[in-house]
Amino acid sequence: MAGNSFGTLFRLTTWGESHGPAIGVVVDGTPPRIPLAEADIQHWLDRRKPGQSRFTTQRREPDQVKVLSGVFEGLTTGAPIQLLIENVGQRSKDYGEIKDRFRPGHADYTYWAKYGIRDYRGGGRASARETASRVAAGAIARKILGDAVRIRGAVIQMGPHKIDRARWEWEAVEDNPFWCPDRQAAQLWEGFLDEIRKRGSSAGAVIEVVASGVPVGLGEPVYDKLDGDLARAIMTINAVKAVEIGAGFAAAALSGEENADEMRMESGRVRFLANNAGGILGGISTGQDIVVRFAVKPTSSILTPRRTVDIHGHDVDISTKGRHDPCVGIRAVPVGEAMLAVVLADHLLRHRAQCG
Amino acid sequence: MAGNSFGTLFRLTTWGESHGPAIGVVVDGTPPRIPLAEADIQHWLDRRKPGQSRFTTQRREPDQVKVLSGVFEGLTTGAPIQLLIENVGQRSKDYGEIKDRFRPGHADYTYWAKYGIRDYRGGGRASARETASRVAAGAIARKILGDAVRIRGAVIQMGPHKIDRARWEWEAVEDNPFWCPDRQAAQLWEGFLDEIRKRGSSAGAVIEVVASGVPVGLGEPVYDKLDGDLARAIMTINAVKAVEIGAGFAAAALSGEENADEMRMESGRVRFLANNAGGILGGISTGQDIVVRFAVKPTSSILTPRRTVDIHGHDVDISTKGRHDPCVGIRAVPVGEAMLAVVLADHLLRHRAQCG
Amino acid sequence: MAGNSFGTLFRLTTWGESHGPAIGVVVDGTPPRIPLAEADIQHWLDRRKPGQSRFTTQRREPDQVKVLSGVFEGLTTGAPIQLLIENVGQRSKDYGEIKDRFRPGHADYTYWAKYGIRDYRGGGRASARETASRVAAGAIARKILGDAVRIRGAVIQMGPHKIDRARWEWEAVEDNPFWCPDRQAAQLWEGFLDEIRKRGSSAGAVIEVVASGVPVGLGEPVYDKLDGDLARAIMTINAVKAVEIGAGFAAAALSGEENADEMRMESGRVRFLANNAGGILGGISTGQDIVVRFAVKPTSSILTPRRTVDIHGHDVDISTKGRHDPCVGIRAVPVGEAMLAVVLADHLLRHRAQCG
Amino acid sequence: MAGNSFGTLFRLTTWGESHGPAIGVVVDGTPPRIPLAEADIQHWLDRRKPGQSRFTTQRREPDQVKVLSGVFEGLTTGAPIQLLIENVGQRSKDYGEIKDRFRPGHADYTYWAKYGIRDYRGGGRASARETASRVAAGAIARKILGDAVRIRGAVIQMGPHKIDRARWEWEAVEDNPFWCPDRQAAQLWEGFLDEIRKRGSSAGAVIEVVASGVPVGLGEPVYDKLDGDLARAIMTINAVKAVEIGAGFAAAALSGEENADEMRMESGRVRFLANNAGGILGGISTGQDIVVRFAVKPTSSILTPRRTVDIHGHDVDISTKGRHDPCVGIRAVPVGEAMLAVVLADHLLRHRAQCG
Repeated sequence: MAGNSFGTLFRLTTWGESHGPAIGVVVDGTPPRIPLAEADIQHWLDRRKPGQSRFTTQRREPDQVKVLSGVFEGLTTGAPIQLLIENVGQRSKDYGEIKDRFRPGHADYTYWAKYGIRDYRGGGRASARETASRVAAGAIARKILGDAVRIRGAVIQMGPHKIDRARWEWEAVEDNPFWCPDRQAAQLWEGFLDEIRKRGSSAGAVIEVVASGVPVGLGEPVYDKLDGDLARAIMTINAVKAVEIGAGFAAAALSGEENADEMRMESGRVRFLANNAGGILGGISTGQDIVVRFAVKPTSSILTPRRTVDIHGHDVDISTKGRHDPCVGIRAVPVGEAMLAVVLADHLLRHRAQCG
Repeated sequence: MAGNSFGTLFRLTTWGESHGPAIGVVVDGTPPRIPLAEADIQHWLDRRKPGQSRFTTQRREPDQVKVLSGVFEGLTTGAPIQLLIENVGQRSKDYGEIKDRFRPGHADYTYWAKYGIRDYRGGGRASARETASRVAAGAIARKILGDAVRIRGAVIQMGPHKIDRARWEWEAVEDNPFWCPDRQAAQLWEGFLDEIRKRGSSAGAVIEVVASGVPVGLGEPVYDKLDGDLARAIMTINAVKAVEIGAGFAAAALSGEENADEMRMESGRVRFLANNAGGILGGISTGQDIVVRFAVKPTSSILTPRRTVDIHGHDVDISTKGRHDPCVGIRAVPVGEAMLAVVLADHLLRHRAQCG
Repeated sequence: MAGNSFGTLFRLTTWGESHGPAIGVVVDGTPPRIPLAEADIQHWLDRRKPGQSRFTTQRREPDQVKVLSGVFEGLTTGAPIQLLIENVGQRSKDYGEIKDRFRPGHADYTYWAKYGIRDYRGGGRASARETASRVAAGAIARKILGDAVRIRGAVIQMGPHKIDRARWEWEAVEDNPFWCPDRQAAQLWEGFLDEIRKRGSSAGAVIEVVASGVPVGLGEPVYDKLDGDLARAIMTINAVKAVEIGAGFAAAALSGEENADEMRMESGRVRFLANNAGGILGGISTGQDIVVRFAVKPTSSILTPRRTVDIHGHDVDISTKGRHDPCVGIRAVPVGEAMLAVVLADHLLRHRAQCG
Repeated sequence: MAGNSFGTLFRLTTWGESHGPAIGVVVDGTPPRIPLAEADIQHWLDRRKPGQSRFTTQRREPDQVKVLSGVFEGLTTGAPIQLLIENVGQRSKDYGEIKDRFRPGHADYTYWAKYGIRDYRGGGRASARETASRVAAGAIARKILGDAVRIRGAVIQMGPHKIDRARWEWEAVEDNPFWCPDRQAAQLWEGFLDEIRKRGSSAGAVIEVVASGVPVGLGEPVYDKLDGDLARAIMTINAVKAVEIGAGFAAAALSGEENADEMRMESGRVRFLANNAGGILGGISTGQDIVVRFAVKPTSSILTPRRTVDIHGHDVDISTKGRHDPCVGIRAVPVGEAMLAVVLADHLLRHRAQCG
């Protein structure tokens, strides 16, 4: 396929550039007769919206979603749903330096090398602005999954600073600008990020997203395993460099006795005594929490001058002025949640198709 | 799609169970007029073959591949290539315990819950035996990529024991039974694994696969990014729980200055001064080495009795007798290499389609 | 997949209902650096536009296309191209009868039965208005094919009245409101259709679309044969009930000697002495004209009261007031041309991918 | 995708050449726990088998199917089912003429032009032998559809000789070697075909396949309409040049009053008063019989010398010796039935996925 679609039965196709007239997504395959209003989608977009604290970009992106199709009298019809978000508030005037120079860590060079042309305004198609479409589609995915499935996310490492998992409180996540579940860590991060921001540098992050209440049996072996699709879904988010499920990389250091989650019956149902598997065995959900962790690299746009080359093949330097996130990882939380929802919704439909 | 296919233009469809009459793969989309003999494929299968040292399972799987279609007078024709490997040497006689009990860490429970039926003999479809088909297909992918692209892999962590990257020698990889690039680490691992094996336990591993000579421009943003497809390709390998590209999780702890790879012109070509990106920016190859790292959990089949449940809903214990790998991660090296080759071959064709 | 996409590498995803705010199409996979302006697309949309003669519906659909993405400084970038057409001039006020009653020959009943909900305004998603998106996408497909490939169409039968192929003049097609290549037939049809229109009835039509200059070798056996994809592309156009290639149904009555097109060398190239194959053998283009013929049923909306049922399970009658095409087949000509272009563009890219 | 697969959730991937060691098909996406034995598949293969009368090729193709995967203890497991048919009884010795010369009406020239190589033995991949895989897969599709859905086919025109539909008896179909539902026509055809066969010529045919008992609601608008998928499924069968649904081409000559099928309630269910729609409206099944008609061109291999060219670019003549069907259309009946079953099974699963 052409590259801008995701999913098999519940299927997104996104389009649009950072500084074009609009961005959007066609959401195809939604079951009919699900109540859906623009406000249902706006709710999740607002969580991703920048400019909500000094730790995210000060650009103003109202990100107002419009539903152009697929909904009739407040209900989905089964037809494709076009969600459109107009781009407003871009300052496209001056792209002098960026126009000809490849910013290190960005997709500037590779787009140029691949396509021989590139929309350099704000990153064009490679801008993280595309993730607004994912969040919008994720809102519909959540509707398909229903209230029994709960999807939440948190930042668990900011730069080199990890949280203490013993202090994890889901409630804390909403109380600080970092989606941090550890109140003490959140305080530390505030100073850390302020310092980073002031000197025009940036920091990476590790995010954890969790789905609870997922039924047993989702996932299609062997190439459409649930974890395979999740890995792809997450890795395609801008700036993500790593994905793990359950114990993840730490599993390599465990013994077989420690790693394999034992089972016991409890009230007539299978209960796992641990969750190193992260809720997935053989590519199929176990009914436990699905736990996905991913790393976001530090924002590549920083104030320090960097060595690079230009489109004419000359060595040049570049530094990024203007408004940027000191840590893009923060805004990746609602995006990671959305992609988890999208993958689960697709597999829910696929499972129903084959297994009834 | 149905779940047993991978790739868009260069496309695998695998089939077969561990203890059925045969396993195999249909490889579709191979360009015509590529010289291909069974020996070209057998070469790579032999590297994956078990029973080559005391550190891999002592099962005898000759894994002799037959080419049933798509090749005529020694050349590919463009038609689908069916590769078939007969299953010989299974000891299917006694599955008493395994038949009714779910082995912790295996797909037994999830297959049963999803399908209501499961071929319990040797793991059935969920067996790592399926990876032989991947390796066979990978041999064709390498032919498509040609000699300019070199794909290699190594185990870089065995259980908790990491290599020292300063001692990395690619030549060392062929000289020890662990594909270990650090000769000192290899010696240490020998004692470690012997001990693990003797007490019937198991260890995990971390593998690194690297592709050199990959042209700039492979990868299709935004959902078919090269790293997205690699993440899926690798995560669908049995027992894999984590995937990272370039600096991976470590990128989260870097500053923007440290992470973004700078560029300079050198002999008329763009040269990157580091490779934290692992050869991929914006989902598109940069021309640098593509570096993928992944974690394999410890073999779930161990001698120690484990708590579990059976298909009748009773609490029971289970321990695995018979021949098993103390570390399945070792045999994952040729599989990881194969999946890297498969993804690159697919994207080479896709890039040629759109960009000529 | 979800059902609203077409094509593998050059891929459309359409969305929108007849009486919603807008319709549109995401065109993914377009090669980069192709000059593309809104006017290039508008040209073809204008040919499909209704209200141009008394023989097509008098509804006013300005069908003004907007390019929202994928084009930068007048050139395609390789990113998805969103084409949006606002819906203006619908008279949605009064749907009294249609709201609850299933119009015979329309998709009213099947949408209701399938989805349990239906946007009844103007046919909703099932409206032929969707074909505007096809025509818009077809304009981009023509750009990919380039000037060497010429795609034209004509109505060759109006109701029971066939043209005389001996009088075929391509120039005539532009000179009458029926796209009729036979000037005498066009005159006859005028009276015939006037009579049909006046008594509120409708007529079917047969359309022929032809692509000249198509290179040898397009088409992917065996399930993605060029004729297979064309058959699907054409059959999914509203009201189409039959598709044939070359001699089509007439081939059944020929002898083997008459049917198989002989070959001779001419100026160093293979020349076929006839074209019963319609330019396709074994699912692959021969280099001859590709000839596709299809039947469009008579417009189902007519003045005569018809027996039907309503959503409450009662027997009722229905007749359609308002503006309707006496023969929808006329406006199917540019749509058939567009779908032919779309299929050829996709296969051009696919052929380049596998065969270089 | 690569071209040798069909279907979205119920998905075939076929492989193999006429004179290679074997042909086969991977059937993916079958629901679990369906009873399936080799005999269930063999039953349908035997109906397609050549050499059963003097009107089909005298080649001996025992076509013995083997189930290599996906079935355990007599039940499907949900895993991919590999069906393998060994090629026996080919006389591959002498391909002198055919090796270098392009047979008119065959895919020889286009395969050569596309791929630059071709397996000329018996047509290679382009041989109608591939249709045995379709029939085998169709047997599984019928199992998914269950007994409530009945799929039957008949030859309704042999060369120029049509049946009289007033004399249609389904029982007659099994009583003559032509699957002819009109006993009088069958007698006429016997003489006609004998004469054709004796002078080494060939005849085309028109086949009608019908599915009864199909539930309302199958089909995914707008590009995966049921009729769109059927058109593609049928058009990809070897030698097919035309497909129509319901009234098909004849619909063009009907008036709106005649064509649109009226409805009435009957015993609480919707009943259509005619079936010009062929059981499909708006791409979705109506619950009526699904009626598909298609034309098969006359066998291109005939005794009469034909003008052609060779791979060296010389004008040459060619005539086909050996065993060939005077009318390949006869053997297309079980193939058409199989493809109808395959499309319906896929859409049954897809409908269940989206609409529950």
